[in-house]
Amino acid sequence: MHSRAIIRERGNTTKRYRLHPAQVVVSGFALTILGGTALLILPNARVGPGGASFLEALFTATSAVCVTGLTVVDTAVYWTPFGQVVILLLIQIGGFGIMSFASVVGLAIARKLSLRSRITAAAETKSVGLADVKGLVFGVVRISLAIEVTVALLLALRFMLGYGEPVGRSIWLGVFHSVSSFNNAGFALFSDNLMGYATDAWICLPIAAAVILGGLGFPVIVQLRRQLRRQGRYPRHWLQRAWSIRTWTMNTRIVVAGTFVLLVLGTAYITAVEWSNPNTLGPLDWQGKLLAGFFQSVQTRTAGFNSVDIGQLDSATLLGMDVLMLIGGGPAGTAGGIKITTFAVLFFILWTEVRGQVAVNVFGKRLSRAVHREAITIALLAVGVIIGATAALMLMTDISMDALLFEAISAFATVGLSTGITAGLPWEGQVILILLMFIGRLGPITFASAIALRERHATYELPKERPIIG
Amino acid sequence: MHSRAIIRERGNTTKRYRLHPAQVVVSGFALTILGGTALLILPNARVGPGGASFLEALFTATSAVCVTGLTVVDTAVYWTPFGQVVILLLIQIGGFGIMSFASVVGLAIARKLSLRSRITAAAETKSVGLADVKGLVFGVVRISLAIEVTVALLLALRFMLGYGEPVGRSIWLGVFHSVSSFNNAGFALFSDNLMGYATDAWICLPIAAAVILGGLGFPVIVQLRRQLRRQGRYPRHWLQRAWSIRTWTMNTRIVVAGTFVLLVLGTAYITAVEWSNPNTLGPLDWQGKLLAGFFQSVQTRTAGFNSVDIGQLDSATLLGMDVLMLIGGGPAGTAGGIKITTFAVLFFILWTEVRGQVAVNVFGKRLSRAVHREAITIALLAVGVIIGATAALMLMTDISMDALLFEAISAFATVGLSTGITAGLPWEGQVILILLMFIGRLGPITFASAIALRERHATYELPKERPIIG
Ligand SMILES: [K+]
Ligand SMILES: [K+]
Repeated sequence: MHSRAIIRERGNTTKRYRLHPAQVVVSGFALTILGGTALLILPNARVGPGGASFLEALFTATSAVCVTGLTVVDTAVYWTPFGQVVILLLIQIGGFGIMSFASVVGLAIARKLSLRSRITAAAETKSVGLADVKGLVFGVVRISLAIEVTVALLLALRFMLGYGEPVGRSIWLGVFHSVSSFNNAGFALFSDNLMGYATDAWICLPIAAAVILGGLGFPVIVQLRRQLRRQGRYPRHWLQRAWSIRTWTMNTRIVVAGTFVLLVLGTAYITAVEWSNPNTLGPLDWQGKLLAGFFQSVQTRTAGFNSVDIGQLDSATLLGMDVLMLIGGGPAGTAGGIKITTFAVLFFILWTEVRGQVAVNVFGKRLSRAVHREAITIALLAVGVIIGATAALMLMTDISMDALLFEAISAFATVGLSTGITAGLPWEGQVILILLMFIGRLGPITFASAIALRERHATYELPKERPIIG
Repeated sequence: MHSRAIIRERGNTTKRYRLHPAQVVVSGFALTILGGTALLILPNARVGPGGASFLEALFTATSAVCVTGLTVVDTAVYWTPFGQVVILLLIQIGGFGIMSFASVVGLAIARKLSLRSRITAAAETKSVGLADVKGLVFGVVRISLAIEVTVALLLALRFMLGYGEPVGRSIWLGVFHSVSSFNNAGFALFSDNLMGYATDAWICLPIAAAVILGGLGFPVIVQLRRQLRRQGRYPRHWLQRAWSIRTWTMNTRIVVAGTFVLLVLGTAYITAVEWSNPNTLGPLDWQGKLLAGFFQSVQTRTAGFNSVDIGQLDSATLLGMDVLMLIGGGPAGTAGGIKITTFAVLFFILWTEVRGQVAVNVFGKRLSRAVHREAITIALLAVGVIIGATAALMLMTDISMDALLFEAISAFATVGLSTGITAGLPWEGQVILILLMFIGRLGPITFASAIALRERHATYELPKERPIIG
């Protein structure tokens, strides 16, 4: 199977054509961004006279399609309802696009792996057909809409009943923030993002749930859903149910366990450091501190909503959030970053070395050796891009390193949190952020899939040697 | 061969005793630091009435033994000649200690590797005997002294002829800065370090040469010296001579090539960013800019002298220096950091993945797979320790992130450069720096040797699986 031809028409021997999915997806994203820019530049997209500038429109469209959430203008007051609908559609297209693409890639890698490990494999390559792709995309759309409708209803009810908003506006607010949540976009229709709802659990928890689900990634959602259904059909004792985790794939186990651990550690760290900061959690009671700390921990790993003022956080909190943002969420979802799985692979390698074991074993399975090098490569490239971008931003401005590093990681990991410096950056700086969002959204998945799907042929093996390490 | 018993008495079958080198070396370093602290606390070590405080003495002794060069007091005026001699001896003991220990470990790893790869290996384990250790330590001392005497003479001549210093003081200045250079300590006997000699090539170049040689590491120096001698005996055409690089070990090739590349890139980056900074390179002519940029590039990779004011550097320069400091120098020398070899292994893994090759080949040899995981482990632990320490320093002070991150990396990588915040840190912060220096000096080599020398037994192999990366 050639690396660029993972999708192939089945049973069509006379007129075989090959799609190059990475090129298609990258071009598709670029074209969607340009289309969104064209729409946002229209005079009726912007409140007040005249249209948005090209850079404002491009930045906003990139941020929406790459589900990042960084903004150079105030989404709530700068754009008309038409402009906001365009942003919503861009978010939804971007979310569908990345989930579908990453799922197809994941399927192709799984097929390739199972093919290689089966000795009795048939001679012909079983690649991913168009029927598989259609099935996956249909599944992505169905599950996304089901979750988005549920969360939208919950939020609309709260805006109507709790804040006395009219029905129409309540539904609009519900739909927009639900889509923005599940797709981990972080765009909000309030000038202070969700800071006005920091202690409202009915707003924060459904949003957090949608963010977490979207961040798990499509393969994990599908597996969890399948299991819930099967258990619904044959109800069993909860202990037996727990045993069925044994059927989970390594990917699902790592993502679920990693999400849980990162949420707990993130909540504990942010809440502890900010506990008595008068500009963030200080004025809240302890339940409020925990809710806001938990919410920020959820958002940091890629969604980018904020219920506290990011610019007022302690620089130690920002550094901790840098780490959480860089790790990100699960693969084949709307989360960004290097992904929980990449980080987990590096961590398990470390753990294996510390314990002096031979093979890297994860949840009762041996971790494929090819994955070691893929994980190192993705992590190193990410760190390299971020350090380079931060250095460039430092040369352009006099803004402090913690704010610039935070901004660069937020853009690359498509998080969208900011200490408030985005709009004030010079245009070259904003162009760097646009590139970071695009590279951060498509780079790791494109690159990792290219690595994983490539055929490698070893002609001969050289004699082994090693340098001194440490 | 048990991991903790890499040194064993040869031919002594009746009364076999085992040294545990990591424990011996860590205890030896700790005891030397405590002894140095006791000497520096004496009233006649300090100028003026009374002795230094315990923390001042402990910090200075740790900084000297770990050849770091961070200071909380001004070495030039705070300590008496007696105190300065104590510091010089601590530097020399620390330098000998780390070079000898790391060389013994390197020899043990090489023996183990050659044993494993030879099918016809004898049944008895050939471990490193005391005779080997004596030979290595003797070699380290002889080569160190030869280089130190040469550089001391050059410097003393310059101080005498160029600056009119009396003979005695010229020799003292030559010896101190020569020892401080070759051992990559970075302690200087001038309050502004070497800023007064920024454009004096006769001072800067011998110091830079000593720093580079010390930073190559003992195994590389030995190999280069052996080759020079052989070529001296049988003079050949330079083209033939270049071919004899083929006999270099992978370690020597990586260290020499890596040192060259990092020096060139570091010089280019620092000189370019600081070119017109009025507080650093701005006032110098272009030769001066190049000399000072080169000198700072040499020093950043672990020695820690400075001929420009580090506190006045652009924050982008500091970030670039962070990377250089973290990478450090060659293994089994007086350099710190994760070492060029560790970084090179990660880089070559990345390069292999980008090119889609099967094996990681470096300079015509295949890189042992065990080294991949060792390198990841060392790099991750280093980054983890530095981020943790930086977060702790951020919580303790209001100093900016770039200065604190720089300080933490400088301490961990035993570089000793500082933006000038060391003395002003609260005592808890100084304790963190002391721990960072100690861990940074002994951690990577101790940990890497424990990993590399450990016997691993795989009982059974689990089925293989992989998560999605990127
Ligand atoms: K986002
Ligand atoms: K040093």
